[in-house]
Amino acid sequence: MHSKRFFTLSASCPDRVGIIARVSGFIAENKGWILESSYHSDDSNDETRYFMRLEVKADSLPFNLSEFRERFRPIAEEMQMDWKISDSAVKKRVVIMVSQQEHCLYDLLARWQSKELDIEIPCVISNHETFRGFVEWHGIPFHYVPVQADNKQAAYDEIQRLFEEARGDTMVLARYMQILSTELCHKFSEQIINIHHSFLPSFVGAKPYHQAYQRGVKLIGATCHYVTNELDQGPIIEQDVIRIDHSDSVDDMVRYGKDIEKAVLARGLRYHLEDRVLAHGKKTVVFR
Amino acid sequence: MHSKRFFTLSASCPDRVGIIARVSGFIAENKGWILESSYHSDDSNDETRYFMRLEVKADSLPFNLSEFRERFRPIAEEMQMDWKISDSAVKKRVVIMVSQQEHCLYDLLARWQSKELDIEIPCVISNHETFRGFVEWHGIPFHYVPVQADNKQAAYDEIQRLFEEARGDTMVLARYMQILSTELCHKFSEQIINIHHSFLPSFVGAKPYHQAYQRGVKLIGATCHYVTNELDQGPIIEQDVIRIDHSDSVDDMVRYGKDIEKAVLARGLRYHLEDRVLAHGKKTVVFR
Amino acid sequence: MHSKRFFTLSASCPDRVGIIARVSGFIAENKGWILESSYHSDDSNDETRYFMRLEVKADSLPFNLSEFRERFRPIAEEMQMDWKISDSAVKKRVVIMVSQQEHCLYDLLARWQSKELDIEIPCVISNHETFRGFVEWHGIPFHYVPVQADNKQAAYDEIQRLFEEARGDTMVLARYMQILSTELCHKFSEQIINIHHSFLPSFVGAKPYHQAYQRGVKLIGATCHYVTNELDQGPIIEQDVIRIDHSDSVDDMVRYGKDIEKAVLARGLRYHLEDRVLAHGKKTVVFR
Amino acid sequence: MHSKRFFTLSASCPDRVGIIARVSGFIAENKGWILESSYHSDDSNDETRYFMRLEVKADSLPFNLSEFRERFRPIAEEMQMDWKISDSAVKKRVVIMVSQQEHCLYDLLARWQSKELDIEIPCVISNHETFRGFVEWHGIPFHYVPVQADNKQAAYDEIQRLFEEARGDTMVLARYMQILSTELCHKFSEQIINIHHSFLPSFVGAKPYHQAYQRGVKLIGATCHYVTNELDQGPIIEQDVIRIDHSDSVDDMVRYGKDIEKAVLARGLRYHLEDRVLAHGKKTVVFR
Repeated sequence: MHSKRFFTLSASCPDRVGIIARVSGFIAENKGWILESSYHSDDSNDETRYFMRLEVKADSLPFNLSEFRERFRPIAEEMQMDWKISDSAVKKRVVIMVSQQEHCLYDLLARWQSKELDIEIPCVISNHETFRGFVEWHGIPFHYVPVQADNKQAAYDEIQRLFEEARGDTMVLARYMQILSTELCHKFSEQIINIHHSFLPSFVGAKPYHQAYQRGVKLIGATCHYVTNELDQGPIIEQDVIRIDHSDSVDDMVRYGKDIEKAVLARGLRYHLEDRVLAHGKKTVVFR
Repeated sequence: MHSKRFFTLSASCPDRVGIIARVSGFIAENKGWILESSYHSDDSNDETRYFMRLEVKADSLPFNLSEFRERFRPIAEEMQMDWKISDSAVKKRVVIMVSQQEHCLYDLLARWQSKELDIEIPCVISNHETFRGFVEWHGIPFHYVPVQADNKQAAYDEIQRLFEEARGDTMVLARYMQILSTELCHKFSEQIINIHHSFLPSFVGAKPYHQAYQRGVKLIGATCHYVTNELDQGPIIEQDVIRIDHSDSVDDMVRYGKDIEKAVLARGLRYHLEDRVLAHGKKTVVFR
Repeated sequence: MHSKRFFTLSASCPDRVGIIARVSGFIAENKGWILESSYHSDDSNDETRYFMRLEVKADSLPFNLSEFRERFRPIAEEMQMDWKISDSAVKKRVVIMVSQQEHCLYDLLARWQSKELDIEIPCVISNHETFRGFVEWHGIPFHYVPVQADNKQAAYDEIQRLFEEARGDTMVLARYMQILSTELCHKFSEQIINIHHSFLPSFVGAKPYHQAYQRGVKLIGATCHYVTNELDQGPIIEQDVIRIDHSDSVDDMVRYGKDIEKAVLARGLRYHLEDRVLAHGKKTVVFR
Repeated sequence: MHSKRFFTLSASCPDRVGIIARVSGFIAENKGWILESSYHSDDSNDETRYFMRLEVKADSLPFNLSEFRERFRPIAEEMQMDWKISDSAVKKRVVIMVSQQEHCLYDLLARWQSKELDIEIPCVISNHETFRGFVEWHGIPFHYVPVQADNKQAAYDEIQRLFEEARGDTMVLARYMQILSTELCHKFSEQIINIHHSFLPSFVGAKPYHQAYQRGVKLIGATCHYVTNELDQGPIIEQDVIRIDHSDSVDDMVRYGKDIEKAVLARGLRYHLEDRVLAHGKKTVVFR
C-alpha cells in the first residue's frame, strides 16, 4: 500500500499472446508509473482466462479517471475484457449489517476510526437495537430493520432502499444472522461479503461450532465469501483456522472463533475494497 | 519425553468425586514418582466421563509391569475403567502399509532410523513392488500383497495373517490407497491409523485435492484418524493445514499437501504410540 | 470454561512423591468435584519444581473461599508451596493503560462489553486524551496522566495511586508507549502485562517492525509478557506470528501486526486472569 | 508449475517508466506465451529498484535458449539489468552437504526420488561416513571429507574441487554442522543455501533450541537463507514456526524443529531452483 494517489485497473479476459504488452504498452506510452502489478493465467476450464491488476500513480498520467476509462475502453473491447478502473482518492462506501454479536462490528469501527480502513460507512443496519448507541456515538447513522417470519420481503425491500440511498458500494454481513433474499443476492452480486464461522465447505449452515464439536476436529476456522443465493456456497475470498483440543467446549470454540472471524473478515474486506478480488465462477483470484 | 524408563497408565471411566485421589493415592503409597499426568472431564454426553494418563518412573515403584497391572486391577474395577498400562522399555510393533507414494514411507523410516520413533517395524506391506528395494535396504521385510477387484478377500486375509504373524500393535496406512475390509476395521479397532489428504470432514473420498481446487479453498489440510468401516469418518487424532492461493494448481496442492500429510501422520502416530490418544465415541482425547 | 462457580487453586513447590495424592486427597475428603486439573514437573534447574492448577466446583465443597484457604494452608506449608486460591464469582479488576493506538483498546472493550472477558474495568489511564470519549461512553472512568521527560516520577506516582485506588488486580499495557519505573515493575510484579509488537527475543525496543523490515524476515509476530524492569525481557505468556512477504511495506506490517497484537494480548490476559500462568524465573508455565 | 517446457527470465534493474512494456513487448513481438509473471518495485532505499520474473512457453518462441539470451541482451543493457534466463528442460545440479542428522537428507532424497524435485544430485558430501550406504543405495556418489581443527583449509579446498567437478549449481547445507570458509562463501555467493534451526534473527549460532528453551518462547522456528560469511546473517529465503509449550523439553523441541527444518529447507530450495528468489542486499524478493 502506498500513501500516493493511484488508479487501479483490474480486468480479466480470454488468454492470448500479448495481453501484458498491450496493457503495459498503453500505460508506458502515457508515461504511467506502475506501482504494483499482478497477473494470473487460469487454464482449469476449457477456455484459458487471464486476470490482471495494476496500480498506476495518478499524477504520472496526463489524464483523469474518466479520461483513463475512455482511452482504455478500445483495448478492453478488443481483448473482450471484464474490467474496471478505480481511484484511490474516492473512498468506498461500506454498509455494515449486524445482529447482536459485537466482535466484527467493534473490529471494523476500530479500523475505520484509525483510518486503517479508509472508507465511508454511510450507515449500519441491524435487526436488533443492541448497537444503536455504540454506532451513533461514532457519528454513523443506525437503521433498525426488524426481520420476522411474516415481514421478510418488506425487510429486504427496506434494506435495498437503505443501501441504495446510502450509495453503498459494498454490504458487509458482520455476523448478520439473517439470510438475504435471492433478489438481493443477484442485484448486488459480488458486492455482498459474509463471514461464515466455519472452515468451508465443512459445517455449512447453522451452529457450525456445534457441528465441529460433534465431529471432534482439531482446528476450527472462518470463511469470508461473496454471498450468492446458495447458502454458504459463494466464492471464497479468505479463510483461516485456529487450533483447539479436546478440552475446548463449544463456548471456548465460539470464543476462539470470534478472533478468527474478525481477522478473516477484515482481510477479505480489504482485498475486496482494493479491487484485489476477481471472481471466476465459484472461485476467486486474490492478488494479495 | 524422558529418557528414563516409565510406565504409562491411561484410562477412562464415569466421572465421580475422588478419582484422581484414588489413583494418585495408590501411586503415592507405592512411592511412585509421577513424571507427567493429564486429566480431562467430558460432559458433552448424558454421562460425564473422565479421562486420565499418567507416566510413572519405573524404578521408583517396588513392582514390575505385570504386578502393577495386578495391583491396579481392583481400583480399575471399582471405578469401571477402560484402562491399560504400558512399559516404555517395550517397543511398539508398527506395520506400515504403503502403495506408490514415497513421502510418508521415507519420513517414517527416517524417524525410525534415527530412533526419534523408538519402535520396531516388523514389516512393510504393499500392493506394489515399488519400494521393496528401499525397505529391504533398511533391513525390514517387505511383503507384496496385490489387491485386485477379484481377490480382495484373499488380500485382506493375507494382510491380517502378516499383521498377526508380525505381532503388530499398530497398522499405519501411509498413503495406502486401498480400503480395508469391515472385518479388519473391527478386529483391529483403534489400532489402524490412516492419513487422509484433506482437512476432514471436507473432501471425503477420492481425489480430495481436486475437490479442494474446484471449491477454491484458501487452505488445504491433512487428517490423521483411526480407521473405522465408515470411509474417512473415524475418530480424528491430528490435523493441520497449509495456505495456498489461486496460483496453485492441483499438482502444487498435491506437493504442498505431502508435507502436511507426513507431518500430521508422524505426530498422530507418536501420540498413539505414547498412549496419549483415548478414543471417545467418534472423537478423541489427545493428551499432548 | 464452565458456567458453574468454581475455586481455582494454583501452586508450585519442590517436586517429591505424593503431591497430587496429597492435594487431590484433600479435595476428595471434602467431596470436592474437580472440573479441570493440570500438573507439570520442571527439571530444567537443579531443583525439580512442581506446578499445578485445579478447578473445583464451588458448591461441591462444604466451605467457602476463606475456609478453603484456611484448611489448605497446612498442606501448602508442608509442601513449601507458592500458592493461591481464587473464586470465579469474584471478578478480577483490570486497569487498562493506553496511548494513541486504538486496536487493543477497542478489542478489550468489545470482549468486556459482551462478557467474553468477565472482568471489572475500574478505569482506563492514558498519556493522551484521545480515547476519553470512547472510554467514557462505555461508562468507564478515564484518567489522563501525561508523561513528559521532566515529570516522570510524578506520573508514575499518579499511576500507582490510581491503580491502588481502583483496587486493581492487573494492569494491562495495551500498546501503552511508555516505560514504567523500576519501582512500579517491582511493586506489581506478575501483575503488569505488556504486548510487544515483535516475536521476542527478536527486535527488542523501539520500532520493531522497522527492524523486521530491514532484516527481511518472512513472518512477524507479537509477544505478551509480564513486565519486569528489563525492557522486553519479562516472562513470556503468549506469542504468535503472521506471514508477510517482500511486497509488504512497514505500514503493511504495522497493519498485519495489529491483528496479531490484539489476539495475543487477549489470549495472554485471559490465561493470566484465569490463574493459568505460573511464572518460573524468566519463564512461564501456562496451563492452557 | 506447468508440465510444459518453459524459459524463466528473472531480472532486477533501476525502476523507471515502461519496464514491463519493454520486456513484455519483446516477448509479444516474438509470439511468446507468458505462463506466469511477477513484478515488484522496492522503494525502501534511495534508488527504487524493480524486480521481475517471467515464465515463457518454450515452443511458443521462434528461438532457443542461447538466441533468447542474445536477443534479450540489448534490452537488458539498456535497462542496466542484473538478469538471467534459464530453461526448465535443463535440470539444476544440487550438491548436498550433510553431517550426522538424517531428516533433511531423507527428505530431499524422497523428493528427488519421486521427481517432485526434478534435479540432478551429482554427489553428497559429508564430514562423517554415517550416510554413505543410504546415499549410495540411491545411486548417488558419496564423498567423505573430514573437517578437523587442523585441516580446515584442505577440507574447504576439497569441497570446492568436488563441487566444481560435479558442475554444481547449488550447494545445500542440509544440517551440515560446519562453517564454510569466507572464500567459499564469496565464490559461490547466492549459490549456497543453509537451514538454520531457529527463527532468525533470534538464537544465532550454536544450540538454538537450548537458547529458545532458556528464554521460554512459545513458538520455535527454522530459517532457510543464503550463506554469507557472517554467521546466520545471510538473506532469508523462507521461515516457519511451530507452537510449543512449557511441557516440551529441549529434546521435544529438537524433534518438532526437525519437521519445520526439512519443510522450510525444501520450500526455500524449490524457490531458489525455480529462480523465484532475487537477492536484494541483505533481503530477498521471493516470487512465490
